[in-house]
Amino acid sequence: MLHAGLDSVGREPRVHDSSQPLLFADDLAAVRGDGIFETLMLRGGSVRNLDRHAKRFRRSAAMLGLPEPDLDLWGRATDLAVEEWKKQYPELADRDCGLRWVLSRGRESTGRPTGWITVAPMSEEVERGRREGVKVMSAERGFRLDLSERSPWALIGAKTLSYAANMAALRYAHEHDFDDVIFISDDGAVLEGPTSTVIAVSDRRMMTPKTDAGILAGTTQASMFGIARERGWECEERRLTLDDLKAADGVWLVSSVRVAARVLSLDGFEFDRPDTADEVEEIAAEAVRE
Amino acid sequence: MLHAGLDSVGREPRVHDSSQPLLFADDLAAVRGDGIFETLMLRGGSVRNLDRHAKRFRRSAAMLGLPEPDLDLWGRATDLAVEEWKKQYPELADRDCGLRWVLSRGRESTGRPTGWITVAPMSEEVERGRREGVKVMSAERGFRLDLSERSPWALIGAKTLSYAANMAALRYAHEHDFDDVIFISDDGAVLEGPTSTVIAVSDRRMMTPKTDAGILAGTTQASMFGIARERGWECEERRLTLDDLKAADGVWLVSSVRVAARVLSLDGFEFDRPDTADEVEEIAAEAVRE
Repeated sequence: MLHAGLDSVGREPRVHDSSQPLLFADDLAAVRGDGIFETLMLRGGSVRNLDRHAKRFRRSAAMLGLPEPDLDLWGRATDLAVEEWKKQYPELADRDCGLRWVLSRGRESTGRPTGWITVAPMSEEVERGRREGVKVMSAERGFRLDLSERSPWALIGAKTLSYAANMAALRYAHEHDFDDVIFISDDGAVLEGPTSTVIAVSDRRMMTPKTDAGILAGTTQASMFGIARERGWECEERRLTLDDLKAADGVWLVSSVRVAARVLSLDGFEFDRPDTADEVEEIAAEAVRE
Repeated sequence: MLHAGLDSVGREPRVHDSSQPLLFADDLAAVRGDGIFETLMLRGGSVRNLDRHAKRFRRSAAMLGLPEPDLDLWGRATDLAVEEWKKQYPELADRDCGLRWVLSRGRESTGRPTGWITVAPMSEEVERGRREGVKVMSAERGFRLDLSERSPWALIGAKTLSYAANMAALRYAHEHDFDDVIFISDDGAVLEGPTSTVIAVSDRRMMTPKTDAGILAGTTQASMFGIARERGWECEERRLTLDDLKAADGVWLVSSVRVAARVLSLDGFEFDRPDTADEVEEIAAEAVRE
């Protein structure tokens, strides 16, 4: 674990000793979940899909009314974190890592935003999901599809630090012998995983829920769709139900560090590994190449 | 601002220098909003309604699957924080303060829960609301009333650190020249404020939304109802609509540190100060006496 601190956003980044605390007790990230984040794949010494993450980071900041992130500064902080990671942990050079950007509204007592970066190897759980696939349960999330239009404060589509419910859904799944969750809306539309985007595949067609359904636009999904289209696949954002998923050849949960985990079963319904699985996973691997 | 650190829950509390960071960069409070809190009124050197807060804190911890808080330990930490506050800030002895308990799931890299306490004087904004009243807008929150039964992971009723949406609703209100917000459900039921409980008063009857409507049980409201009943008031938890609020003699937002702020207007509809207002505010003051 490494922490590169941008201890007050706007100052030059510096490396922070990860054995020492970084955040004050009144940081609004910690007491209100009031901030945003991105998790980037760090592979072979470089971060992937930087532009897509940077764009979403700016969009999230705007939705929360945070100051616009200085992307040059975040880029320099990322370079610094990667260099330091290589120096401190040369033995982990081949391991996929998550490099996390966090921007908080800052200390309650000062009002100055706080920014920081952490680097850590991919967890064993995520690695196992990628390698072996995941058993998934569906779970009603409870947001209505039109909520974001009427209730901008619900922050649908912003990647905020307020993830307690997502984490609780994952704990609930683990307690019931599932590996992961697919959220659905109250009218039966497939939404997303707590930390992933859902992709369904039928023949050479890739489908993912529309982001106007109140879900986070996936960076890995967007990159996969670009590559799949070049290979002659049809790709569409559309409304999907659980029945649509079960009728598909295969379903994957995709995200930056996991890349892609094939859904082995959904609420007990088992999927065979489809003929297209190798190509889907090639496309996913290619999606984190840049 | 003072921080008393319980840096790893279970160890004896110690005072933490508030000019120094307390939390590690990978604390799940800060990167996932994954933890719980309570804010207690510190008035005249002692905290108020301790038992009600302690009970809710335990209930929240259970809902999030956190280890059961050792209430003796939190009590000793609270005593320590209060003593230290008096010592460091004798000039603020007469100011109402918020004493905040935070229990986080802890560091991602260690899995050990983190607990801490902060003390800070009531903000000027809250003080003004108490003194002068507040202009309130209603806002649809988007949770359905039966969500908590079907979706325990939504953590409805737990006081989690994931407050980004609540804070966004308050910012939205401020941008539109309101002081505060009353959330309503999609079927028109009054829920709560982002950081308060709603109480409506008609004649000598107090009404508040049922907590089974997916809202946080209010400690100040509960205490006020106990006192009002002793004074011969009728008190009831019931379904309330915005029209019910407008038809009431008066409406208050109540919480531990603000105590009670009278709603001056709701979506532009203005309330006269009712004859019972003095007694309501006496009851509120009494509710934070213990």
